[in-house]
Amino acid sequence: MNALVFQTDFGLADGAVSAMYGVAYSVNAELKVHDLTHEITPFAIWEASYRLIQTIPYWPEGTVFVSVVDPGVGSDRKSIVARTKSGKYIVTPDNGTLTHVLHFDDIAEVREIDEKKNRLPNSGESYTFHGRDVYAFTGARLASGIIDYEGVGPQLPVEGLISLPIVEPYVDEAGVHGTIDVLDVRFGSLWTNIPRQLFLKLGSKYGDRLSITIENDKRIVYRNIILYAKSFADVYVGEALTYVNSLDCMAVAINQGSFARAYNISTGNSWGITIAPFKGF
Amino acid sequence: MNALVFQTDFGLADGAVSAMYGVAYSVNAELKVHDLTHEITPFAIWEASYRLIQTIPYWPEGTVFVSVVDPGVGSDRKSIVARTKSGKYIVTPDNGTLTHVLHFDDIAEVREIDEKKNRLPNSGESYTFHGRDVYAFTGARLASGIIDYEGVGPQLPVEGLISLPIVEPYVDEAGVHGTIDVLDVRFGSLWTNIPRQLFLKLGSKYGDRLSITIENDKRIVYRNIILYAKSFADVYVGEALTYVNSLDCMAVAINQGSFARAYNISTGNSWGITIAPFKGF
Amino acid sequence: MNALVFQTDFGLADGAVSAMYGVAYSVNAELKVHDLTHEITPFAIWEASYRLIQTIPYWPEGTVFVSVVDPGVGSDRKSIVARTKSGKYIVTPDNGTLTHVLHFDDIAEVREIDEKKNRLPNSGESYTFHGRDVYAFTGARLASGIIDYEGVGPQLPVEGLISLPIVEPYVDEAGVHGTIDVLDVRFGSLWTNIPRQLFLKLGSKYGDRLSITIENDKRIVYRNIILYAKSFADVYVGEALTYVNSLDCMAVAINQGSFARAYNISTGNSWGITIAPFKGF
Repeated sequence: MNALVFQTDFGLADGAVSAMYGVAYSVNAELKVHDLTHEITPFAIWEASYRLIQTIPYWPEGTVFVSVVDPGVGSDRKSIVARTKSGKYIVTPDNGTLTHVLHFDDIAEVREIDEKKNRLPNSGESYTFHGRDVYAFTGARLASGIIDYEGVGPQLPVEGLISLPIVEPYVDEAGVHGTIDVLDVRFGSLWTNIPRQLFLKLGSKYGDRLSITIENDKRIVYRNIILYAKSFADVYVGEALTYVNSLDCMAVAINQGSFARAYNISTGNSWGITIAPFKGF
Repeated sequence: MNALVFQTDFGLADGAVSAMYGVAYSVNAELKVHDLTHEITPFAIWEASYRLIQTIPYWPEGTVFVSVVDPGVGSDRKSIVARTKSGKYIVTPDNGTLTHVLHFDDIAEVREIDEKKNRLPNSGESYTFHGRDVYAFTGARLASGIIDYEGVGPQLPVEGLISLPIVEPYVDEAGVHGTIDVLDVRFGSLWTNIPRQLFLKLGSKYGDRLSITIENDKRIVYRNIILYAKSFADVYVGEALTYVNSLDCMAVAINQGSFARAYNISTGNSWGITIAPFKGF
Repeated sequence: MNALVFQTDFGLADGAVSAMYGVAYSVNAELKVHDLTHEITPFAIWEASYRLIQTIPYWPEGTVFVSVVDPGVGSDRKSIVARTKSGKYIVTPDNGTLTHVLHFDDIAEVREIDEKKNRLPNSGESYTFHGRDVYAFTGARLASGIIDYEGVGPQLPVEGLISLPIVEPYVDEAGVHGTIDVLDVRFGSLWTNIPRQLFLKLGSKYGDRLSITIENDKRIVYRNIILYAKSFADVYVGEALTYVNSLDCMAVAINQGSFARAYNISTGNSWGITIAPFKGF
């Protein structure tokens, strides 16, 4: 019996997620169902994709993720189950939710859900809640071993998967350049797509001062000097810092404040960041 | 060991729900406790009633629901456990929370909780948290088989249950008339009390245009022509649609927008909706 | 296999809590992980401390709580596991999170986490997410019996634990004096630090009228006469009441309203409350 982990943009204020849980437990009462999050911004496929790579590595082999951020429900977008190279499964519409898992080359195989076999019985007249009728049902059957991976349906070519555009970080003489991928929501910290290893090519060490420039569509939104700190405790309360986040990428925050709210900074490919060693005025 | 499912209006920001979980696991550590939602609008008995019918059908036989939206805690309102015809249980104050389950004629039997047997030991001086001291405790005992249904307490007549007023939908020459029961909270879609089967008496088919009129206490709040779509993917982003929701009733939404917020529409018996075939100007 | 219960100030909108769950289930897939709350106000150690005493008594012996409200992550604050006198465990940074458990003299023993043994393998380069890498990992090992309590690390003196200042309630000729410790968040009720037993020294009985004075730093914010009620049902909707809350302390509320919002009242040691019998004008 493998763990089943749900992610949606449904919120928890109504009965939608609980109906998905009920479907899973009706498939097999011994299942263990858990949550990634249900507070993905509505229709934000990019965010759903990111939250998957943020958490998948920490769950055991065999875990089945069900991710339902599905603005195209009812269209001809495919319903699929991906198998990762580390032996985890992701049940999802094929709409870009696998962007980051693909980008980090972690997909071993993809299959399309055969709804003739893998759809909640007597749910055929509902066209708007595949999360309950197809994805939770299929995920529960897979996690509990009622079907094996081949039982999902026919194989699809990995190259055909839908992927959202990703901007690659790079280093040049002006510093290391990347984008602001996502927020550490509750704390308002900026998580960039710049890996620590790439940043280290600048030669900076903890305690150094860095020049940080943040642009939105080439308009400068923020430019200042910030300490490169090992952790929040290295700066004053209210002071900004640049640090390595829990995904081993560079991040920018205010200690016990919200950097995103302080400077009205959002996320996505139009939000660029440049980090450079500060060489004095 | 049957599943135990909690619903409250307590929110998850403090320790109230976790204390209920603790009580349940103290009754039996092997129990599986789950959530319907804890974000029912405070004191909104109608909403609690609706969320029950939205989810109960998807949980396995034997599941015990505990619903605590209890503005009358400490009054002489009764504490009861209903058994549904499909073999599920609902532990709740008798205050209208069973309105919809009653309306759909799904109650087989009701019993009053005998607090001499079914109350958390040493909780006698607390008069404000029956959710923890009576409902979670009784639900856990029932779900884990420490008591059987007869062990809850004496039988009550089903006819005596408190029920909130329900307006019946109907068809006349002007169209099909109903009320807006509840929102699909996160997406702002309107869920009506008009079953698909009743709507189909209008003779409309997917792709037809419908005239939608929404009134609050007879004041017209919205009137326009909307496509009857199979799913959200059949209309443009930002376009309105009428569709069959996941409970097989008619619903109105804006694709990737919020209909409720766009037109300041709320829920309840004072919010009427009329759907009619659009016959051209 | 003992229950593992998580509390954080991370919220549930991103993947942080789910990563902690994944770490726990990777330690032992049979574990049962639950939540206290993840909506502690960011960095509010006092609130985290209060939520622990609100819930710990209701969980079974052996339960392992992991509380991560950790503004000093990366500083030299210690990582500890406390054992309570009733046989429960609390995994937490030593930053005041144990204030109330200490105050009620419920700590039997404290040990410092030896991170050489009790740290998620290969997490050494992350300095900002001890919740995942140290606390969830250690809690899961303890709850599943991989380590016993001695396996946490070396013993520390209980007297050395960090504690936030607590103001003691007292009675004098003007009434009983205390502070507003915390809110019943969703309902806006004020929970004071005045135990029912202390209040009863005033000689008041249900149905008596009480004079309530609330001060912020000696400035009077509220003064009025309120009924001492057994429960909310004893007053009109919209009427204020004083009652005994579910922790057996005195509380002040508006029936189906928010006392905190009505009078802009917050919490902490600067918020004093005096309750006295009302003797007429």
